[in-house]
Amino acid sequence: MELIDGNLIAATIIAELKAEVAALPGRKPCIALVRIGDDPASLSYVKKKEKTAAEIGLTSRIILPPVTISQTDLFALLDQLNADPTVDGILVQSPLPKHLSEVAVFRRVSALKDVDGFNTLNLGKVAQEDETGFVACTPAGIMELLARSGVDLKGRHVVVLGRSLIVGKPVALLALQKKAGANATVTVCHSGTTNLPALTRQADVLIAAIGRAEFVTADMVKPGAVIIDVGINRVPDPTKKTGYRLTGDVHFPSVSPLASKITPVPGGVGPMTVALLMKNTLKAYRLQTAS
Amino acid sequence: MELIDGNLIAATIIAELKAEVAALPGRKPCIALVRIGDDPASLSYVKKKEKTAAEIGLTSRIILPPVTISQTDLFALLDQLNADPTVDGILVQSPLPKHLSEVAVFRRVSALKDVDGFNTLNLGKVAQEDETGFVACTPAGIMELLARSGVDLKGRHVVVLGRSLIVGKPVALLALQKKAGANATVTVCHSGTTNLPALTRQADVLIAAIGRAEFVTADMVKPGAVIIDVGINRVPDPTKKTGYRLTGDVHFPSVSPLASKITPVPGGVGPMTVALLMKNTLKAYRLQTAS
Repeated sequence: MELIDGNLIAATIIAELKAEVAALPGRKPCIALVRIGDDPASLSYVKKKEKTAAEIGLTSRIILPPVTISQTDLFALLDQLNADPTVDGILVQSPLPKHLSEVAVFRRVSALKDVDGFNTLNLGKVAQEDETGFVACTPAGIMELLARSGVDLKGRHVVVLGRSLIVGKPVALLALQKKAGANATVTVCHSGTTNLPALTRQADVLIAAIGRAEFVTADMVKPGAVIIDVGINRVPDPTKKTGYRLTGDVHFPSVSPLASKITPVPGGVGPMTVALLMKNTLKAYRLQTAS
Repeated sequence: MELIDGNLIAATIIAELKAEVAALPGRKPCIALVRIGDDPASLSYVKKKEKTAAEIGLTSRIILPPVTISQTDLFALLDQLNADPTVDGILVQSPLPKHLSEVAVFRRVSALKDVDGFNTLNLGKVAQEDETGFVACTPAGIMELLARSGVDLKGRHVVVLGRSLIVGKPVALLALQKKAGANATVTVCHSGTTNLPALTRQADVLIAAIGRAEFVTADMVKPGAVIIDVGINRVPDPTKKTGYRLTGDVHFPSVSPLASKITPVPGGVGPMTVALLMKNTLKAYRLQTAS
């Protein structure tokens, strides 16, 4: 079994981006990070993104509207950022407060600055295999992780567990694409799937993104499979100072001995998401400055 | 084995639409049918659409740019139709001449008038389960065919053979949706799939859209499966006056005895596509008149 080291691969990407950014003339690419309210997870995510941007040499602009902001006011703010030539990428940190529609908010971000890849148009472009758009960071990160670990999906059976808009569906569409590294046969399973273990056991590559702690157990995995664990779940653990530990959607102790390669949690897919956000920001900058 | 009669189901939908249109006050919904050049298949498709529109009481406007039209001029024509308040739906008949980019042309059609459902934004909305958009007519027709034949996909395994943008991918996304009638587990196979028969034999519902005459044979089908044949292939046949016969992607003689339900070719999915185009046109009219 080989551990896929997401921290290491992300660090490589970050170093590549840093070199690219250093070579840019004039102003540096800028990402606007919009965080609404004080959700502790959002706070730490935005902090991590800000820190990584700084490390690469990107500018970040942190915008902190009150948790009570109306959708109209948020739209006005986004329109302003969309029109601002010194802002290349815009990220609205999810989850949003309940009174805001995520799909509507993400759709309001200009498709040209949509570094999160959640705009409807960019999702459509993933289906169309149109590379002018932005791919959402987690699925893009998974594809990079596979490519840089020497896993070619061609002719292989990828089983995606979970059909979310942010991971399951886009990663399924990416794995299906005709381009090099992809070209997989793809099955999407979910909470409504009958006889799930029989399906996941067919996976050459299993991507678990169902959001249930240690859901994937040894009996659900074919020996030799590549396992990508997208889950980040908090499980109570009285032995920890915080009172919990982080675990993925895969039961690592029983599954890892069977896998040919596997991502740990934390340190697998997580760091890739931030790295790909930065890569998207540089792409957005190039789109902006080319137009 | 029960034959799924696409002609009959399409006729029911057309009758429903006719009643709806008759009840509309004022001007009738209008579809602009843009046919470029004289491809004989395009000619017959557009004629069929025009005829069905007339039957329902919709207005159609046939526009016949020369086969040499530049992309710029075609864009100008589409912009004019996009802006015309008396045009509700716009269809650009494919295939287009080689010098025109299909994706770019389809993207130029206003998302609000995109009755073909090929605009990138509408494809993204299918992934988002956002019903304000338009679903491409063939995949929408397949879902209607299943629903009106009493096939509930919930908990069933749908195997889609083919990953085209027009059928394979959108029908996979539709079958995955959480809404009633859908909620399937979905596998997408294609020309690059290894061990294809082992996968298609798992299908409770097999949707064949691979564009190869009689490709699906009895050994690829589980007894009792529902078979949807999207293929329309011309096979040389000296006994026919035309010199060819139409056949699907399924070898009907050997597969039909195994199937619980199956669509014939012709008379299965084909007529549904036209019926759903008309349904989309009425939806476009309602969008137009509501705004």
